[in-house]
Amino acid sequence: MIEISKNSSNPLPSWNDGPAKKSIIDFITKTTNEGGAEYIPAADRIACFDNDGTLWSEMPVVQLAFVIDRIKSAAPQHPEWKTEQPFKAILESDVNAFKEGGVKSVEAILAATHTGITTEEFDQTVKDWIRAAKHPKTGMLYADMIFKPMLELLNYLRANGYKTFIVSGGGIDFMRVFSEELYGIPSYQVVGSSGKVKYEVKDGKPLLIKTPELNFIDDKEGKPAGIHQHIGKRPVFTAGNSDGDYAMLEYTSAGAGPRFGMIIHHTDTEREFSYEAPQVGSSLDKGLKEAVKNNWLVVDMKNDWKEIF
Amino acid sequence: MIEISKNSSNPLPSWNDGPAKKSIIDFITKTTNEGGAEYIPAADRIACFDNDGTLWSEMPVVQLAFVIDRIKSAAPQHPEWKTEQPFKAILESDVNAFKEGGVKSVEAILAATHTGITTEEFDQTVKDWIRAAKHPKTGMLYADMIFKPMLELLNYLRANGYKTFIVSGGGIDFMRVFSEELYGIPSYQVVGSSGKVKYEVKDGKPLLIKTPELNFIDDKEGKPAGIHQHIGKRPVFTAGNSDGDYAMLEYTSAGAGPRFGMIIHHTDTEREFSYEAPQVGSSLDKGLKEAVKNNWLVVDMKNDWKEIF
Repeated sequence: MIEISKNSSNPLPSWNDGPAKKSIIDFITKTTNEGGAEYIPAADRIACFDNDGTLWSEMPVVQLAFVIDRIKSAAPQHPEWKTEQPFKAILESDVNAFKEGGVKSVEAILAATHTGITTEEFDQTVKDWIRAAKHPKTGMLYADMIFKPMLELLNYLRANGYKTFIVSGGGIDFMRVFSEELYGIPSYQVVGSSGKVKYEVKDGKPLLIKTPELNFIDDKEGKPAGIHQHIGKRPVFTAGNSDGDYAMLEYTSAGAGPRFGMIIHHTDTEREFSYEAPQVGSSLDKGLKEAVKNNWLVVDMKNDWKEIF
Repeated sequence: MIEISKNSSNPLPSWNDGPAKKSIIDFITKTTNEGGAEYIPAADRIACFDNDGTLWSEMPVVQLAFVIDRIKSAAPQHPEWKTEQPFKAILESDVNAFKEGGVKSVEAILAATHTGITTEEFDQTVKDWIRAAKHPKTGMLYADMIFKPMLELLNYLRANGYKTFIVSGGGIDFMRVFSEELYGIPSYQVVGSSGKVKYEVKDGKPLLIKTPELNFIDDKEGKPAGIHQHIGKRPVFTAGNSDGDYAMLEYTSAGAGPRFGMIIHHTDTEREFSYEAPQVGSSLDKGLKEAVKNNWLVVDMKNDWKEIF
């Protein structure tokens, strides 16, 4: 974990000097300057970060890679999956067939891989997987494909009294397993999508069982709702990378006083990938178009980041 | 706010010397003694507290007093409430008629008082109310009827690296308004019952509207589930005062390593009230019977607390 003190002379070493870096430092400086016009008390310094594509790489989405690995390793016990969707699509790596199933596909694979086990069994499965799983192209551990400039930003915010939260469409139970170790974000500062859990005492042992019933989807308009349910305060600093983050950025910026909205724009085909590459397709459109109007910083990964990982 | 340093010679001045006080101090000392056999790393020092009857007085339940005040002040605009349950019962202070309606009664009054407004409007209403509302018998502000020994305990835990959480059947949005000021517990460390919220942009202004749809009831078996959803870790220290806290105490104690369970037993008819008084009726039965077996500390308010408020 990178540690940064409050008064470090260069708190964001992996960021190139320029307007992006300057605007971040200016914001954090002015909002922590006691007595200044734009001072924010420590209790209100809430900073929210999307995860996939904002804090770490999302091609492929890491949790999806986890799910696919789980499906593949359980397939021998489920011969029916060879012909049954969405499992067939997963086993054949047929993205389009999977997408055709929409939300139902996602629910089916989550039910098969994330439920009917205790929360502790699930945690252990994720822990074992994330320690070893590697990106298919880079050969790097997924756990190493965290954006170094964003880690520095998280630390810089925390060194200045900000509380950092993850607010992601990803599974809350999935992210919590590594959020503390990888990002320095404790489990109770993670907001994500979730299924319901059921408490039962089995053979005298109290257990929480993950059920297939959906609890909450933390995406789009769900993000401000998730922030309200978990954090209970409007953030003053929010970073995202897709239109799934639009509502949370909008909600953040509409608050009174100084606010900071940030969009990570994937522009670096060589070092990571670019939204403009035809095989990727962009999940960022509205946010990019309205960034100027909303006074959001668009981070150009290619030009603003000295290092990526 | 009472401040206590880690090495204060008397961290719990409102507790009488005796086995209760000693067992608390022993637990906190041994779990923070680095290198000791029962050391708990700071990241796992999660302490959960019920609110009503554990951190403040619950006769009457404060949120119910709030709801009754809201119903009474809105009654002139609702002549139908004079004959319609559960409103009639509220306006006539008829507890039995209200209880007959069960969960439906609660939902109806929550819908009438807690929904259809923005989260910020609700916060302001609670803030104004809690500043002025007084207990019908003591004449004290509800906000002053916090148990001083428990405030000292919260501070003592925090001074030793514990994170303190509220885990209450009360409304999460209600408690968050005062949790920071009264208990030093930030909004994101409050777990409670909740309705759903809906995000919408109205006249260009993003709003979160409280809807009548129930989201979660944080009571009994719901408490371990609420802890999982919000905190994502099993607590090592839990305090409650009723059988609504049994599951959360049980869940806490079943974890590996040192655990502390505490039951606040209301035994002081003179300074507060006693569960044994016939007009009160006890909501604590199973917990009391099984406290010894579970190694839970039963705090006898009359004998263990030097001061109550």
